[in-house]
Amino acid sequence: MKNVITISREFGSGGRTIGKRVAELLGYAFYDSEIVNQVAERSGFSSAFIEECGEYAGARSSLLFSLATASQYTAGGMSVQDKLYLEQENIIRELADKGGCVIVGRCADYILRERKDALHVFICSDMESRAKRIVECYGKKDKSPEKRLAEKDQKRRVYYRNYTGREWGAMKNYSLCLNSAALGLETCAQIIVQAAK
Amino acid sequence: MKNVITISREFGSGGRTIGKRVAELLGYAFYDSEIVNQVAERSGFSSAFIEECGEYAGARSSLLFSLATASQYTAGGMSVQDKLYLEQENIIRELADKGGCVIVGRCADYILRERKDALHVFICSDMESRAKRIVECYGKKDKSPEKRLAEKDQKRRVYYRNYTGREWGAMKNYSLCLNSAALGLETCAQIIVQAAK
Repeated sequence: MKNVITISREFGSGGRTIGKRVAELLGYAFYDSEIVNQVAERSGFSSAFIEECGEYAGARSSLLFSLATASQYTAGGMSVQDKLYLEQENIIRELADKGGCVIVGRCADYILRERKDALHVFICSDMESRAKRIVECYGKKDKSPEKRLAEKDQKRRVYYRNYTGREWGAMKNYSLCLNSAALGLETCAQIIVQAAK
Repeated sequence: MKNVITISREFGSGGRTIGKRVAELLGYAFYDSEIVNQVAERSGFSSAFIEECGEYAGARSSLLFSLATASQYTAGGMSVQDKLYLEQENIIRELADKGGCVIVGRCADYILRERKDALHVFICSDMESRAKRIVECYGKKDKSPEKRLAEKDQKRRVYYRNYTGREWGAMKNYSLCLNSAALGLETCAQIIVQAAK
């Protein structure tokens, strides 16, 4: 039985929803914003700022973000982003040690790669389904859904590569990769539960 | 219910064994060498030659192969390899139309990509497990298992790209990708059956 399930996912693939459903089916804890809140608490930065750090890839950013990153290095000789990443890494390790949990995103697949009791899952989908989903879930924006998806993918790719040295979404790094458009969200959840047992 | 299951796999991942097991569990026909034999029958070439064509990527090849490909173009203005690929494509379409089957390799995932009743699966594994497996299944050779695996992967990649224009083993092209080293062969088979239902 796998104690820890990490779910990495493309934006708009429904990976978060699948993760929630898996946690429900297995009676596991579900960690997503929980992690950001804990990092915020320990670091003194706002959750919104942490979120921003977790996705920064040269995109337009807040004043605080610009200030915090303008002076690249803090006293410790480490950038603010790096410090926050290390904080996040500690929190993810602590949560995993509690066992019985599903963790979405945040490089958890890499951070927990050595755990024998962890199942690492990647959820992908196709552009059309993802575009449809983000408009349903987050509404229309000035930017086209396709552009929003491309930007988000790029941010996740850069962030992941920067902290793990691995290619984001490379099949090799996961026990299973599921296409939610082809299988449907519920079937994806059922398959993950079966694989975890 | 999915009528047709295509299984693409890395050499040494146990994909063929998983496919056989899935066919057994679903009471489906299992096509692998069957396809080569039919191509051989229709083309007049030997099965060994067809196999060779199906994997040619500049590696050392038989006299017949050299002769057949030296004069690049046949009367039809098409290379021997291309003709054999088209023959194989027809046979795979015919077999899929019969329904209730598992087809391993041979670009079937691409050839049948439009079928709504097809489930496309990719089986990967890690180098260590694959090396161990090919020595168990096919014995030791002068070449190291790692070198044999690298060559086979390269052949499949080149052949697949040549005929499909797609990248071999790209997650996007499959409904599910399973790591047989992480999950085990039986669990992979069980998951595929569940996804097919």
